[in-house]
Amino acid sequence: MKYEVDLTQMCPATFAFHVIGGKWNLPILALLSEEGPIRYNELKRRLNGITGTTLTHCLKDLIDYGIIHREQYHEVPPRVEYSLTPSGQELVPLIEEIVAWGANNIHALGGQKV
Amino acid sequence: MKYEVDLTQMCPATFAFHVIGGKWNLPILALLSEEGPIRYNELKRRLNGITGTTLTHCLKDLIDYGIIHREQYHEVPPRVEYSLTPSGQELVPLIEEIVAWGANNIHALGGQKV
Repeated sequence: MKYEVDLTQMCPATFAFHVIGGKWNLPILALLSEEGPIRYNELKRRLNGITGTTLTHCLKDLIDYGIIHREQYHEVPPRVEYSLTPSGQELVPLIEEIVAWGANNIHALGGQKV
Repeated sequence: MKYEVDLTQMCPATFAFHVIGGKWNLPILALLSEEGPIRYNELKRRLNGITGTTLTHCLKDLIDYGIIHREQYHEVPPRVEYSLTPSGQELVPLIEEIVAWGANNIHALGGQKV
């Protein structure tokens, strides 16, 4: 396949690379794929090492991309949950293939890199 | 699937997320998947907006992960080419699926986000 890679122009490839790329986007999508709706604090707890600012920024991006949905419940205290949109759901089998690739190829890792 | 996401611990999922994640890794892998061996300057030219420092850093990471191979030819002037390892080659169909997902779901994009 021939790729036009210009991250300043949104085409199918760059759109996909924006959604999948980024240090935390795939981990966030992986957790949403297994959990169904999940609250901000639970996401933050399970993403070891992420800062609140970064998580908020990633979630906003993924909402803008139409990949995740933010539902605010008007309760006291207010409850906010995040879930995958239909477009996000279509990524679930791909994420599973990516992880399966990781299981098959982690042997390629020299050992020194974390 | 149940995920343990701890980017400080290398397991199949975090290995895969390190390789695929990052703003430039997927674009680099996409170009290598279509071109065969490719020289540094050609990569930089086709990755609109990447700095030399960032490209060098990404290539070093992907070499350490065992995904790409660096071949230096002892010519004058010296020639260096990058290509996918067998582990990297296994990613090619996945990258094509990721781009196909992008083509099917770019409609989810609100329009304002680049």
